[in-house]
Amino acid sequence: MGEILSANRIEGAVRKDVPERVISRLPIYLQTVETIAATGQETVSSEDLAARSGVSPSILRKDLSQLGRSGTRGVGYSCPELASTLRTFLGLDRDRSVAIIGAGRLGSALADYAGFRRRGLRLTAIFDIDEEKIGTTIGTLTVSSLDDLPTWSEHIDLVVMAVPAAAAPAAARAAVDAGVRGILNFSPTVLDAPDTVRVHQVDLASELQVLAYYSALDTAPLNPGFEEHRN
Amino acid sequence: MGEILSANRIEGAVRKDVPERVISRLPIYLQTVETIAATGQETVSSEDLAARSGVSPSILRKDLSQLGRSGTRGVGYSCPELASTLRTFLGLDRDRSVAIIGAGRLGSALADYAGFRRRGLRLTAIFDIDEEKIGTTIGTLTVSSLDDLPTWSEHIDLVVMAVPAAAAPAAARAAVDAGVRGILNFSPTVLDAPDTVRVHQVDLASELQVLAYYSALDTAPLNPGFEEHRN
Repeated sequence: MGEILSANRIEGAVRKDVPERVISRLPIYLQTVETIAATGQETVSSEDLAARSGVSPSILRKDLSQLGRSGTRGVGYSCPELASTLRTFLGLDRDRSVAIIGAGRLGSALADYAGFRRRGLRLTAIFDIDEEKIGTTIGTLTVSSLDDLPTWSEHIDLVVMAVPAAAAPAAARAAVDAGVRGILNFSPTVLDAPDTVRVHQVDLASELQVLAYYSALDTAPLNPGFEEHRN
Repeated sequence: MGEILSANRIEGAVRKDVPERVISRLPIYLQTVETIAATGQETVSSEDLAARSGVSPSILRKDLSQLGRSGTRGVGYSCPELASTLRTFLGLDRDRSVAIIGAGRLGSALADYAGFRRRGLRLTAIFDIDEEKIGTTIGTLTVSSLDDLPTWSEHIDLVVMAVPAAAAPAAARAAVDAGVRGILNFSPTVLDAPDTVRVHQVDLASELQVLAYYSALDTAPLNPGFEEHRN
């Protein structure tokens, strides 16, 4: 069934039809199936893959069928084939370059974050506007001036924003001007970006408030895992 | 219309009927309306509130109508009333206590994260297993031994996990045993928790992979903001 995922189809009809709630689960499936494949296991059942990914088997089967993948009864999915399908579909067959804007505590912690590399993400640069931070070293990277972002633009696909709220709009404009196509925003402010740039907000206080809501319910909530959280 | 949100109704039918994708947007509305109220503005139109929250006006109106709130034509919503409704509904009429497990770079950065307090979240403790970190100070907190977590249990509603993947299962068990009801997990691993404990996963590599997917599309994607991201 791999044919349906040839490059042309991916750029065309198939990609556009897959809803974002499905897309958002694919990286989890990829990570799970790669972890399983790394142990030498050749196939995985939908039940096992679903449990390890924190979704129900029926959600998993529906999601993967949208990519043209269905398991074989009694055998399940081929791990290497499924991993390859997911990587190709997500556009991870080439590494993506990521830059961090903000070399404060959070930016430094994120630069340190384990496992980006083995998940197809290459950290290429970290920027700040603070003269005291520019030129210092974080991990293997030297902090660059945000003014130099344009000279890096060919080497940056995605940006992680880890700056104070007040600095976020200017930093986002710099990233957009440099041609960045996606921004993961940790700054507690909604960013204005043109339609061609995708912005995902990571709002820690909101996440905790949602948890607070459920922890305050009289009745014990069922633990929905990833599935309901993203649906 | 505030009557519908009296304590009894909140604990009962109303709460259970509101889907999580709606719940997840309420903290954003709350933050937006509080920001607007802080400027002294008494009312806000659904269009303005929606734009500032990154959703469409129709989504906003539908979401708030589930809480028994509807705007007045030509006037909009009363800011103080809407803020109060949202706070009560989310259970933020009392502060929630938050502890961080893991006093490394990420944990320290999160301890520093601005704006928890003014959003009803009180950081009460930070834990680690590293003897070198225990007893040191981060902001106004002293790092405690994870072994002491049980003695803190009355003062912790929610836990933020910022430990390496290998340490996460044991740390999660300690939190569950201490009676924690919600875990926000930054560790790149799926946690096993009983049905009574809610776990939200923050998976940075997955977020970036989803961004990579959209940035690789031939056609420029529409920027959906929060709305589509969570739907």
